[in-house]
Amino acid sequence: MKENKLLPRFRVLRGAAIALGPGKAELLQSILETGSLNESARRLDMSYMRAWKLVQTMNKCFREPVAVSERGGKSGGGMKLTDTGRRVLELYQQIESSAVKASGTSWRDLQKLLKD
Amino acid sequence: MKENKLLPRFRVLRGAAIALGPGKAELLQSILETGSLNESARRLDMSYMRAWKLVQTMNKCFREPVAVSERGGKSGGGMKLTDTGRRVLELYQQIESSAVKASGTSWRDLQKLLKD
Repeated sequence: MKENKLLPRFRVLRGAAIALGPGKAELLQSILETGSLNESARRLDMSYMRAWKLVQTMNKCFREPVAVSERGGKSGGGMKLTDTGRRVLELYQQIESSAVKASGTSWRDLQKLLKD
Repeated sequence: MKENKLLPRFRVLRGAAIALGPGKAELLQSILETGSLNESARRLDMSYMRAWKLVQTMNKCFREPVAVSERGGKSGGGMKLTDTGRRVLELYQQIESSAVKASGTSWRDLQKLLKD
């Protein structure tokens, strides 16, 4: 019997721009954990340039930047989430978990139609 | 002021296979409306082969096929959703709409952090 899973993957659009989505949320989570964009890019198997661009897109879409570079220090510069960035991540995760909870009966019914 | 949108894009996994997601749901909706896989592929800007494979994947994941070919007729063969296919589409759309409803406060708070 195979395991069934329902994965919520929200996209937040601001006009035509994707302000936030699963990839960007994962990147914020990783910056929060590692304090480094370089390390986060490696973890998520993307180039440093791509990770940088994702942060830039978010920073353009939100009133306040979600992440800022930190200069100096032993590690030679890192990146950290701002208060806005932490709040954005938290709200995104709340939207995901409330979505899975709300899927209740429909998801149970859908699972019954899947093969075991 | 740019318009903000929250797009739910659920994925239903059966083991490692994606049984259903935004693209497959859109394809089911189009087959429902057009009665044709060829026409649906054109609408969704994908090759006939790709559309065919998406249907095959769904048919492998669900107990009953979601769509079946219809032979004969003036149009030279079409495709229609089965009862299971219509039900699967309906449940997926219910999951999406309940997710957006449930996002309530978190989504409102997140929007306040976006630029106007």
